[in-house]
Amino acid sequence: MQFSLSIGPNIRKSAYFDATVRDGVRGFSVYNHMYIPGNFGDPEGEYDRLINGVAMWDVAVQRQVQLMGPDAGRLAQYLTPRNLAKTKVGQGRYVPLCDHAGWLINDPVLLKIAEDCYWLSVADSDIHLWAAAIAHERGWAVEVSEPDVSPLAIQGPKAEDVTAALFGDWVRDLRYFGFRQTDLDGIPLVLARSGWSKQGGFELYLQDSTRALELWDRVKEAGAPFGIGPGAPNDIERLESGLISYGADMRWQDYRATPFEMGFGPLIDLDSGHDFVGRAALTRMAAEPPARQRVGLTIADRPALPGSPVPLWQGEEQVGYVAEFAYSPRVGTTIGHALIRADLAEAAEGLHLRLSGQIYAATLHPIPFL
Amino acid sequence: MQFSLSIGPNIRKSAYFDATVRDGVRGFSVYNHMYIPGNFGDPEGEYDRLINGVAMWDVAVQRQVQLMGPDAGRLAQYLTPRNLAKTKVGQGRYVPLCDHAGWLINDPVLLKIAEDCYWLSVADSDIHLWAAAIAHERGWAVEVSEPDVSPLAIQGPKAEDVTAALFGDWVRDLRYFGFRQTDLDGIPLVLARSGWSKQGGFELYLQDSTRALELWDRVKEAGAPFGIGPGAPNDIERLESGLISYGADMRWQDYRATPFEMGFGPLIDLDSGHDFVGRAALTRMAAEPPARQRVGLTIADRPALPGSPVPLWQGEEQVGYVAEFAYSPRVGTTIGHALIRADLAEAAEGLHLRLSGQIYAATLHPIPFL
Repeated sequence: MQFSLSIGPNIRKSAYFDATVRDGVRGFSVYNHMYIPGNFGDPEGEYDRLINGVAMWDVAVQRQVQLMGPDAGRLAQYLTPRNLAKTKVGQGRYVPLCDHAGWLINDPVLLKIAEDCYWLSVADSDIHLWAAAIAHERGWAVEVSEPDVSPLAIQGPKAEDVTAALFGDWVRDLRYFGFRQTDLDGIPLVLARSGWSKQGGFELYLQDSTRALELWDRVKEAGAPFGIGPGAPNDIERLESGLISYGADMRWQDYRATPFEMGFGPLIDLDSGHDFVGRAALTRMAAEPPARQRVGLTIADRPALPGSPVPLWQGEEQVGYVAEFAYSPRVGTTIGHALIRADLAEAAEGLHLRLSGQIYAATLHPIPFL
Repeated sequence: MQFSLSIGPNIRKSAYFDATVRDGVRGFSVYNHMYIPGNFGDPEGEYDRLINGVAMWDVAVQRQVQLMGPDAGRLAQYLTPRNLAKTKVGQGRYVPLCDHAGWLINDPVLLKIAEDCYWLSVADSDIHLWAAAIAHERGWAVEVSEPDVSPLAIQGPKAEDVTAALFGDWVRDLRYFGFRQTDLDGIPLVLARSGWSKQGGFELYLQDSTRALELWDRVKEAGAPFGIGPGAPNDIERLESGLISYGADMRWQDYRATPFEMGFGPLIDLDSGHDFVGRAALTRMAAEPPARQRVGLTIADRPALPGSPVPLWQGEEQVGYVAEFAYSPRVGTTIGHALIRADLAEAAEGLHLRLSGQIYAATLHPIPFL
């Protein structure tokens, strides 16, 4: 379904907004109270560039929640069940965040910018409110703020060549989630090997929004010989690659899930004794296997995505829900991510979806699909 | 500017979504991670029904943050600087919420449902995360959750007749923000005299989302003799009436404001000694007049709204910003809300906006405009 979206003052524009309009954006979605490009009118070409070439994405909606001050590290560690003891300046970490009851509320990338400064590059929920409340209630010496940072992603197998052309060959030695503070002829940014795809690439955390158009055009120009084009985080590729989408796969409001259900178990450190939000609840949960488990599905007969999570059935029983599905040209069928009753996660017969009066058979498939 | 909006699983559908699609919704915006109808293709008619007749709005995006348990009242009082001591069950209150530093983070209507149960009917920020963090860090016996509640608004001078036709003449005696738990032939809901307009009306807080279509159609049917039609919260009317829009007039991320700047001073109770989030910061602020003040403006020559807050100039100096403006048919000119340097709030010459290389004169005007 397509509807119009009015551009009004209630929703923030990205620093790259005018550049994306100039370069042909057709549709937006909204994420962290900001517009994010959805497509540029050429879905096949945008997918192809990501898989076989190189794409540039306005992902300024990945807002940074900055923790700064003497207690920044203490707060960062308290906010996530993942153990950060060995995280060094210049390293990023994927950190599930849970509320005090153990439900997932976000899954940001944490960047340790300095010993007294961390960024949480957040998915779609207001972690700044949550983090600031906790810091103040504990009386810790740390300020929670939103710095002027606007990530731009370069993704795809040729992303490294484009990024090296811009910054030099040192970028080829960056490890995954590793980052460095640098600049592009004076445009200040943090350059990280990261991004919401498994096709390889970098994110340029621009630190001066007044220079966004300049940065956008520099990337476009350096990427031209490699066939770069504008795009957006791609749902087909993320389903193929098994990336999690907080807000689609699960969300606090109506599709809650625990980190154990979502496969984050290995990131939950209950052993080293560090305290964190939700520790008591997660300790109780860890005592027994999770009730549900995240699985991949292939789905027959190419149903249309109804635009919201749908029940997953076995016979007359609802055994889970399918968060999102899409036709994958590379897998050659419709694929999706589901949360299913744990006893069915390894083998299950007769799974199906019911959409508009039709039944669509679904079959378990390992994640990632490719 | 108009762009398409894709309907996907990342953003929730309202319980009334299918009804609004059936009844001709053309555009949506996003609020509290949900789609909200923006217009039904007839802006003049929709405005006219609100001002002269009656309109029905899907405002299920007004999510309820429920506080329940022995410490619910204690938490409700701690979350807002407004004194709730005299608030009775069945009464609503407009309650600014500030963070620990005293900045506004939301401006919900609080409904005291029971001695141990409160709802915060929130504007566009994740207050559930913030409230739950505070409750747990304090160790209070109160659960923060999102109940199955989907408000539907009936607004306009004929709203009372429609609502009385549905529920009986007792609704005519409800005071402003007063509410009652009731049902409509078994459809459970809280009926309140409230709504985001100054044209009068009610909000039906539906408590069973599976019956949303039924409720929508009952309201439509009862309203037919009064010329009811679908609409949405109306920016022109809210500017005329001086209603505040958190997310447009101010927001924590980039257009922060204090409650004193926004005119909420009379609601901030620093005298009775009750403790609340931000008390120390607000006490410091209250010691001197606010640096900025909210004012109304009339603007010459009908500029197009650029879709984001814009600077307000006096000569070569930026003296504030204009959050939103729109052409008001009833005032006969473009009107807007601004935050301006406090010394200019009573009288100021030479105010203007600069948009697309043009200068548009602006003149102070009392709020409300009508």
